[in-house]
Formats: sequence, structure tokens, C-alpha cells
Amino acid sequence: MAIHTENIIVEKTKASRINSVDFSNLNFGSVFSDHMFVCDYEDGKWQTPKIVPYQPITLEPSAKIFHYGQSIFEGMKAYKDEEGSVFLFRPMDNIKRMNISAKRLAMPEIPEAYFMDGLKELLKVEKDWIPSAKGSALYIRPFMFATGKGFHASPADSYKFIIACAPSGAYFSGKVKVLIEEHYSRSANGGVGFAKAGGNYAGQFYPTQLAKDKGYQQVIWTDDNTHEYIEEAGAMNIFVRINDTLLTVPTSDRILDGITRKSILAIAEAEGITTEVRKIKVSELIEASENGSLKELFGAGTAAVISPISGFGYKNKDYELPELENTYGELLKKRITDIQTNQTDDAFGWRVKVC
Amino acid sequence: MAIHTENIIVEKTKASRINSVDFSNLNFGSVFSDHMFVCDYEDGKWQTPKIVPYQPITLEPSAKIFHYGQSIFEGMKAYKDEEGSVFLFRPMDNIKRMNISAKRLAMPEIPEAYFMDGLKELLKVEKDWIPSAKGSALYIRPFMFATGKGFHASPADSYKFIIACAPSGAYFSGKVKVLIEEHYSRSANGGVGFAKAGGNYAGQFYPTQLAKDKGYQQVIWTDDNTHEYIEEAGAMNIFVRINDTLLTVPTSDRILDGITRKSILAIAEAEGITTEVRKIKVSELIEASENGSLKELFGAGTAAVISPISGFGYKNKDYELPELENTYGELLKKRITDIQTNQTDDAFGWRVKVC
Repeated sequence: MAIHTENIIVEKTKASRINSVDFSNLNFGSVFSDHMFVCDYEDGKWQTPKIVPYQPITLEPSAKIFHYGQSIFEGMKAYKDEEGSVFLFRPMDNIKRMNISAKRLAMPEIPEAYFMDGLKELLKVEKDWIPSAKGSALYIRPFMFATGKGFHASPADSYKFIIACAPSGAYFSGKVKVLIEEHYSRSANGGVGFAKAGGNYAGQFYPTQLAKDKGYQQVIWTDDNTHEYIEEAGAMNIFVRINDTLLTVPTSDRILDGITRKSILAIAEAEGITTEVRKIKVSELIEASENGSLKELFGAGTAAVISPISGFGYKNKDYELPELENTYGELLKKRITDIQTNQTDDAFGWRVKVC
Repeated sequence: MAIHTENIIVEKTKASRINSVDFSNLNFGSVFSDHMFVCDYEDGKWQTPKIVPYQPITLEPSAKIFHYGQSIFEGMKAYKDEEGSVFLFRPMDNIKRMNISAKRLAMPEIPEAYFMDGLKELLKVEKDWIPSAKGSALYIRPFMFATGKGFHASPADSYKFIIACAPSGAYFSGKVKVLIEEHYSRSANGGVGFAKAGGNYAGQFYPTQLAKDKGYQQVIWTDDNTHEYIEEAGAMNIFVRINDTLLTVPTSDRILDGITRKSILAIAEAEGITTEVRKIKVSELIEASENGSLKELFGAGTAAVISPISGFGYKNKDYELPELENTYGELLKKRITDIQTNQTDDAFGWRVKVC
């Protein structure tokens, strides 16, 4: 299944849109670069991969993506340093996780070389689209969905894998106030919560809207059985600092194995910060907040890197976090983005130079 | 929000495909009729509804259906009697459930009149596509998905609602052998299991494949916390007959409020069959199988109506069901299809004549 760059058909756009983009004023994921990588799975195998102009997709009304939710994705970023070199961050982890998601959703796994060579070749074509301003990056969205036809509730027989790119600024700005969820849930034991499956996100929107109506920006998800344990922060993994210990919850079949999450754990340990990976009760957060030992709460994910939390609501009561200087969140965000953007040595071997 | 038939723009096909279809040999949901109803939600409101030739849909690669799983659907059937009259079965229940699904997935609710008038008008246009042979029907698939653009994980700002039709024979043939699931789950407490959301189905495919590899055709879903209680049968509601009592489990936020399910309960009661709606333990099924009181197991849903189960596997042991004559499953299927196809009086007021 190995491919080589020369096997990818490259069809370049005749009309680049790059001069119409205000790179100093980028939102997250709303402007798309000139090209995308496309590979179709048909007749039991992956077809010839292509790089083509970013363009609409045409599907039959009975395509299973519209009916049975076979859709998975990844989120990655490409960074450009001061010399104009382009880097990815732990891309093999995205590839492997995409295939873990694919398996759980009964979708074909993508040969790693197709993904990696396709991505690198795409980034070479889109190099001018990679912003270099601090905090910005080329957000990369690999995604796969069912194109096979028919109303029968069964896996599709064809799929489309695409990598599209969006030059982006920071995902969130400022601290967010979160609501600890007491009723709704993100995922089931034995379900698909660990996969980056589209359906996991759609189910979060309504509870998040309800939280917004109450004045919160995000939801802290809790376990679906007791709602006593915290699980994720919106679409991110969650970190808690109690005194000087940094805690996060273990991954499971309900919780995404976030790349930012595990990078933060590794960096924190290298920085001499005590870390603990264990279940965290809501009652422990409340108690720590009340006795002053709760110092920080933040979400961690590719898009926002680290999203600091200013306070949380639970059972109609609000708990404020202290305003600290020199937070773990700021330190860890600086360390991880310095590695990502080639501002520092990469002792972990995470950075991959593309061109 | 009321619409009238004269407000629906009807654009008829110039080349009907109906003569290319072998109506005596129809699979389920794989041949599609000439037209579909389409209504777009844009700029905060539903736009002019249209009936157009069945045709491909074109979407941006960043359309949220590809990324965040905002997709819901319904399943209905239109029946034609010997005089050529066309009937629907409890269509308002589908409309109401579609909007329950829409709300949970943070999608706009569809005005009931748009749905109903659009569906009726579509059926008048597609009347010749409705098969009248026993067991066959025009399967109707209303579905809605997010068309709005952007990689931000938030509800889309535009949607497409479509009603497409597929003349279909029976969904399943023969009895199925099922596996009681001990690890995987279909839905979470506080999740979206009660909604007809695409993601609920994608998550079932892989565990179902594993069951098929072991020689079973379907999975009996159990609660995600203990796996001690049965919940659904594949994509259908589940019924159990113990001695002469017909049991099914209560609906909840994990279990679909099936229209066939509640119709069966009502018909069974009218037939003098004792029914119970309560939680059912796997251990109760095992015990009833061992002491001979377990008489029938079947799934119930629009597509298959009733899908009889010949036996089940649990913890590496197989349990066979008895071969009975005059089963509840057969009786109830005959009663419900007689009502649906205008072969009998409709004491319940469920049948709706379209034309």
C-alpha cells in the first residue's frame, strides 16, 4: 500500500484566492486554502490520491453520511518558523488515532503513507497559506465520510478521505466560564466517545446552548452514570491544578486520547511538575475550590492548545478560580507552542519538518 | 409558518426512471423514485419548499455534516390498497419525533405543515412508484443535515431537509439469531439515543460486524453501565413474550420511542394480550429460556415491521427459542399491516389517506 509523492496527481488551481485573505484578521476555520487532498475508497480499496483545487463535493441523497453518521476527523496544525520552514506536531499520532476512529465506526483504515505523504505534499503546495504570526497556524482538517448509497442501516461500501486546510488565528480568546453538566452526557461506556466521530460533537451542541443561556461558555462533561466524575471540557481534555499538582483524567472508551493532553503531561513532568492521571470527582473540585487548593482549570486541545477556565457552575452555585500569575496553563502553552513553532529544541522528538 | 400546496414549487423530471425498475424484485432502500422534496433553512428561516427530480447534492468540504454529525432522519412508509388509494401510517408521530431529534441535535425544527404538505404533495407526484404487492411499500426517508460551513465545533447556520422515497420489499427475511452485547453500547444516559440521529447508527456497525463474525445477524443492546438490562434489538425496539405476556422496555433518553413499538402495544392490548412495559434483565431472559417460559423475541420497527428472533447468544452460550405456531409476532404483524394497507377498519385512527 506504499505510495510515493510522484503517485499523487496534483491539479493546481488557476485562480488562487490567497490575495483576498486578510491574514492579520483570521478567525478559526472559516477561510480555506486553495487546495485539498482527496482519496476515494471504492471497490474495496483506496483509489489514486489527488491534490485538487478546494471545491464542492457532490453526493447522492442516499449517501450514508446523510443518514447513518459514518464520519470521522482529525485536527492538526502546520507551523511556519521565522526562516519559513514548515513543521507538523506529532502527525503520526493523528494518523493512528484517525484509524482507531475508522475501525470503531466500521470505516476503512487509511494507509499511513497515503495520509502522511498526501499531507506533506499538500503542505508543500499550500506553503504560502501557512501563517507565521504568533498564535496562528494552518489548521489542518483530515476527515472521512461515507459516500456509499442506500437507506439500509449498514456500513457504506465507499468513502471519501479529504485533507483540507484553513489558516487560522487562536481558537478561543480569554478565559471561559464553564458549567459542570448534571444531566446530559457526551458518551457511553462501550460507545464511541474515544473516537473523533462527528456524532460525538452534534450531541454536545444542545447542552452547550443551554449552558450558554445560563451565562457559561462551555460544559464540563461528567460520566453518564453518576455525573460525579469530570470527563472532558467541551471538545477538549480537562486539566485541574490542585495546589502544585497537575491532574487529568485517564483516557477510556468515553474520553478522547488527546495529543495536546499527553504532550502537556510529558512537558509538565519534564518541568518537574507533579502530575496525576486519575479519576476526579466533582465533589473534589468543589472542596478544593472552597479550601483554596484549586488553583487552575483548563481545557487542552489542538485548536485552542490551552483554554483557561475562570470559574465553574454546579448545582446553581458559581465557583471562581483565583487570578494567578505564572500559571501552569501559560507555562505549558508556551512550552508546547515553542516546540511546535521551532522556537526551542525538541527533546521529545515530536516536531516533524515538512519543507 | 403555514404553507399551502400551491406554494410548493414542483419541477417534474423529464425522464422518469420508473420503467427501468423491476417492482417484483425490490431490495430495501436501494432504488429511488423520480422526485424528492427539498427545503433549505437559511438566514434563520425555512426557504421555499420544492419538489425536484431526485438529484445529487453539492456541499462545501467544510459543510458541518462532514465534521460534526448534525444529521437526523425518519423512516415512514406509504401503502397502496387494491383500489389504488394511498395511505400513510401515523405520520404526525414521525413529524413530532423528527422535531424532537432536531431539538436535541441543535437543529431547527421543521414546521409541521411544511413536512406534511410536502410529503403529501410528493406522494401525489410519486403515486406510480408506490408498490402494492403484499409486504412492499414506498419507503419514505425524511432527513435533515447541516450544510453550514466552517471547522468551528458549533451548530451550523444552514440546513437541508429532504424527503426521498424508495420502493421497497420486506426489510429482513426469515428469523435472525442475535447476540446480547456485553461490552459495546448504543447510547448514554443523557445522550442522544432517543433521537434518530445518524451517529447512533454508525456506532452500532462495528459491534454488529463483530457479532456477525461470530454467526449472529444482530445485536441486542444492553445498558451501558451494567449490561444487565436489554434495551434495543439492532436498530429496532425489542419485544419479549414470556408465557402469554408481551413485554417491552420503557422508552428513555437511551431508547427510541418507536411508532411500531407503541402501535404493537396498543394492538396487543386490544387483542386481549397482557402487556408489560418495564425493565427486562438479561438474567430474566436466560431464566425464562431455561424454564421454557420464553416463547418469543422480536424486533419492531418501520422497515421490518416485526423481525422474529430464532435464538440468542450470551456469554458464549446459545439459547434457542421454540418453534411456535400462531405467534404473537405473526398476529401483530398481520394486524398492523392490515391497518396500514387498508385491509381492515382502523379503530385507532392511525391511517391517513393521502390520495
